Amino acid sequence: MKILGIDPGLGITGYAVIENSDGKIRLLEAGVIRGKSKKTLPERIHEIYVGLEEIVNQFKPDAMGLEDLYSYYKRPRTAILMGHARGAIMLAAANAGIPVYSYTATRIKKVVTGNGQASKAQMQRAVMREFNLTEIPKPPDVADALGIALTCLFLIKPRPPKLNDFLKNIGKE
Amino acid sequence: MKILGIDPGLGITGYAVIENSDGKIRLLEAGVIRGKSKKTLPERIHEIYVGLEEIVNQFKPDAMGLEDLYSYYKRPRTAILMGHARGAIMLAAANAGIPVYSYTATRIKKVVTGNGQASKAQMQRAVMREFNLTEIPKPPDVADALGIALTCLFLIKPRPPKLNDFLKNIGKE
Repeated sequence: MKILGIDPGLGITGYAVIENSDGKIRLLEAGVIRGKSKKTLPERIHEIYVGLEEIVNQFKPDAMGLEDLYSYYKRPRTAILMGHARGAIMLAAANAGIPVYSYTATRIKKVVTGNGQASKAQMQRAVMREFNLTEIPKPPDVADALGIALTCLFLIKPRPPKLNDFLKNIGKE
Repeated sequence: MKILGIDPGLGITGYAVIENSDGKIRLLEAGVIRGKSKKTLPERIHEIYVGLEEIVNQFKPDAMGLEDLYSYYKRPRTAILMGHARGAIMLAAANAGIPVYSYTATRIKKVVTGNGQASKAQMQRAVMREFNLTEIPKPPDVADALGIALTCLFLIKPRPPKLNDFLKNIGKE
């Protein structure tokens, strides 16, 4: 089972590909897709899409994990723009027939550290321990993507969520 | 000059292709892309993307016009989901190298009817007159897409907007 975790952003999108074989979890690759600031919004989305398409083609993950929209819900401006990036990211998954799962920030923290209110530093340390890393992944978007990938690997269900599940989760925990 | 106007929606996305040749504006094609309600969010976005890609390949428009996000800003839930669809729509344009322009609802009404506060019925009548249609386009998403295409055709500037223009316009008129 191979999972692609994504921490979407218009500036920097973090990604992490992890694998569970024979009960052992391995980190295959993690990094960021960077958008160039001077580009238009459609061009930025296009950069994210093309970058993700490459990763999907190279690793052929079985599922994609994303953070829920809830965390951005209190900042509609950010949430709307993030929605554009998420649309492109979901499309890269859908084009390859990969199901997409999304999890609230609290759920991700709970799964990764055991504490739904964990700090960013606690999350980073937990990710380092899990993958035997000698230093904190940089930029922070990489650690976030690793946390999302771990959560997806642990919680994955056999059936992808329906549209109503996405609707239901917006604005709720 | 050929313009593709889009009225994005997760259920129904309206589109209209219009052309300006020798000062005469013609309607080339208009219709809707329908999403199937039982699909997941990534699958719905994929349907919209594939439908738009076909239209873009067939008509090879010079620009795409969209409605600004402002109208949805007061309903963050809708705006965020719409953002996902808009991301896929912008991507279909970016993949084909087509610049994307967006306009506020008020601007579109003003351009099409002369009145920024025009009713839906007034907009529909104005669109019917402009294109010599014998009846109101159905569903209403088609008339909206025609209004957006007209606005884009009248207001188009030589340079596509930068990311900051999109950011600036969110939450403002």
